[in-house]
Amino acid sequence: MSGARQYCEIPGTFEMRHGGVLERPVVAYETWGRLNDRRDNAVLIFTGMSPSAHASSSPADPTPGWWEEIVGPSRPIDTRRWFVICVNSLGSCFGSTGPASIDPRSGEPYRLDFPELTLEDVASAGRHVLGHLGIDTLHTLVGPSMGGMTALGFAAMFPGMARRLLLISCGAHTLPFSIALRSLQREMIRRDPAWQDGHYAPGAGPASGMRLARKVGMITYRSAQEWEQRFGRERISGERRTDDAPATDFEIESYLEAHARKFTGQFDPNCYLYLSRASDLFDLAEHGGSVAAALARIRVERALVIGVATDLLFPIHQQRELAAGLRAGGGEVTLAELPSIQGHDSFLVDMERFRPVIRRFFAEAAAVSDRGYPDQAAILPPAVGESA
Amino acid sequence: MSGARQYCEIPGTFEMRHGGVLERPVVAYETWGRLNDRRDNAVLIFTGMSPSAHASSSPADPTPGWWEEIVGPSRPIDTRRWFVICVNSLGSCFGSTGPASIDPRSGEPYRLDFPELTLEDVASAGRHVLGHLGIDTLHTLVGPSMGGMTALGFAAMFPGMARRLLLISCGAHTLPFSIALRSLQREMIRRDPAWQDGHYAPGAGPASGMRLARKVGMITYRSAQEWEQRFGRERISGERRTDDAPATDFEIESYLEAHARKFTGQFDPNCYLYLSRASDLFDLAEHGGSVAAALARIRVERALVIGVATDLLFPIHQQRELAAGLRAGGGEVTLAELPSIQGHDSFLVDMERFRPVIRRFFAEAAAVSDRGYPDQAAILPPAVGESA
Repeated sequence: MSGARQYCEIPGTFEMRHGGVLERPVVAYETWGRLNDRRDNAVLIFTGMSPSAHASSSPADPTPGWWEEIVGPSRPIDTRRWFVICVNSLGSCFGSTGPASIDPRSGEPYRLDFPELTLEDVASAGRHVLGHLGIDTLHTLVGPSMGGMTALGFAAMFPGMARRLLLISCGAHTLPFSIALRSLQREMIRRDPAWQDGHYAPGAGPASGMRLARKVGMITYRSAQEWEQRFGRERISGERRTDDAPATDFEIESYLEAHARKFTGQFDPNCYLYLSRASDLFDLAEHGGSVAAALARIRVERALVIGVATDLLFPIHQQRELAAGLRAGGGEVTLAELPSIQGHDSFLVDMERFRPVIRRFFAEAAAVSDRGYPDQAAILPPAVGESA
Repeated sequence: MSGARQYCEIPGTFEMRHGGVLERPVVAYETWGRLNDRRDNAVLIFTGMSPSAHASSSPADPTPGWWEEIVGPSRPIDTRRWFVICVNSLGSCFGSTGPASIDPRSGEPYRLDFPELTLEDVASAGRHVLGHLGIDTLHTLVGPSMGGMTALGFAAMFPGMARRLLLISCGAHTLPFSIALRSLQREMIRRDPAWQDGHYAPGAGPASGMRLARKVGMITYRSAQEWEQRFGRERISGERRTDDAPATDFEIESYLEAHARKFTGQFDPNCYLYLSRASDLFDLAEHGGSVAAALARIRVERALVIGVATDLLFPIHQQRELAAGLRAGGGEVTLAELPSIQGHDSFLVDMERFRPVIRRFFAEAAAVSDRGYPDQAAILPPAVGESA
């Protein structure tokens, strides 16, 4: 467990959007930087499906975070200037209450007794963290992937609370191709006999199903172009073959196996099932009758929507839809279509392309707010190799 | 078993390309039309991974074939004019010798004792059928998907035997994205406990693994665009929910489940493993040192290469590579890039686009050969709605 991790207990009964309640659920979060006296420099990050709240290293936890190169002092989301909060999603297994947590009513893990999860529940839980920290308005709300849909749900439910919005590689909802893939991932876990209808013992879960699901994820989070460049048809050399994988021939197979093994054991299978299904169920159109109506009602002053041409999971036309819809709501919206070849996961790896775009969006925000409140930290020197 | 099915027993010992032998293997095939006296009107079709030799209906077997709208009297491959042969791939389970067949040495099914299969073995077995039928030259060699790679292997191993080549939605080899997907499909089957290292009893095989593998196939054989049009985010209505699939919400999930169940039981899992791996192992570059060199050595007079922009498994740049390489070898090559939205499977379903292109290729062939040998059947009336 991270030394930087903090907890917010939501008092009383937390009502879930699709029915059911949680008693005093906990939301784990981490923060970087300092909330200023005006309490107007807060940046909230919702995560993709699998990360913890550990977006970046800090003195309390020096291990690299999942967005290490984006969040930190002098990085694009500059923690000298912004008070950054990242929450572990409700339903996840990195400190927040989820299916792997103990149900206070039974003294046993919730498992499948956990109520149906929606991304609106994840957003509401995040809202409680802000209350806990004494924050009424967010300078910027940030969400990549599933976190982007969570951010959209947040903005729709709490209009006016976020002044600026940064959405990355997400959409107003999930399209059937991605639903099919995620449905298949869930089925792989459920079909593993070791899943035992969710009643696996800790450490004895459906490892095989989780590995398969992770491989489907790897295949769809990246892109065919990237693998063609990285692996081509390279064969596994003799000494790297293992008895455990006798029927593999190609480096790409070996790469997937290594990554899938790394993931398995870190993530609770029941939590995976809940978060994956919540991603499929989310539909911004529920907040206004249609996607366009919902987006028009999200009143943010400024938004940046970033999409990647090679994203299979949230194709670029979904980010165009978001940008157009937010613009129709009156905000100043920038759409950045990046030519990254790493597909959906580009925001985690293609730092050369993502850093400058995100840096500009935050530097511009600092400059704007500094017209009234001079602050030297707002004038960021351009990083080497970046065009401001 | 089809009443139209015929068998060719390959005499003696059949040596497999990667080692091992088969004793007197059998190749199942069907034919349509009549071999002319000059024996120069033969068209050989190699199939994709899962079909049988039953490409089209006939008096002996009136059930619709897998390419019913392409092969038949007055259809694009007009059986009034051409003698069409379709072979069931060696290693498959629809009459040809494969892992599910009885090994004459043991009296038991081969299962995993079947020697490693390559598409060159499939091509060689097809070559034996031609010898059996007294055919020395092919007017046209046809291959969609895996059958296209088999056709390339055939053309490379038996240069000059095919005068014309029709390649559809295939490539000179499989790229890592598709290797990853097929590798995952094979792993799903092997990880199903019912697979039992290939020693399942007939009818008691890895049904769950096969269903999962088929779903991955369905997801990658079609396209995201098609599903967006067909399914959107339509929910499963209450009465269509079944106890067997309690955790499905969307029509796309129901559709995949129905198709996967239909497939399972038809196809032998061990045969699937062998044919899938053979597809990954194939590399035309082995026949000449590089893909370009191998293609340049395939001397055909005329070729048509058809690709589909939405194909995830064999992206369009692979068909461009084939066309350019064959052209460099001196043949007259047409590349048809079709805007079908059904992805890799378009050649099976987008008849409006595929019929006219294939019809033109064969009608042109008929007209050319008829300059010397007048034959009224060569002058095909254009079909309704088609531009010749």
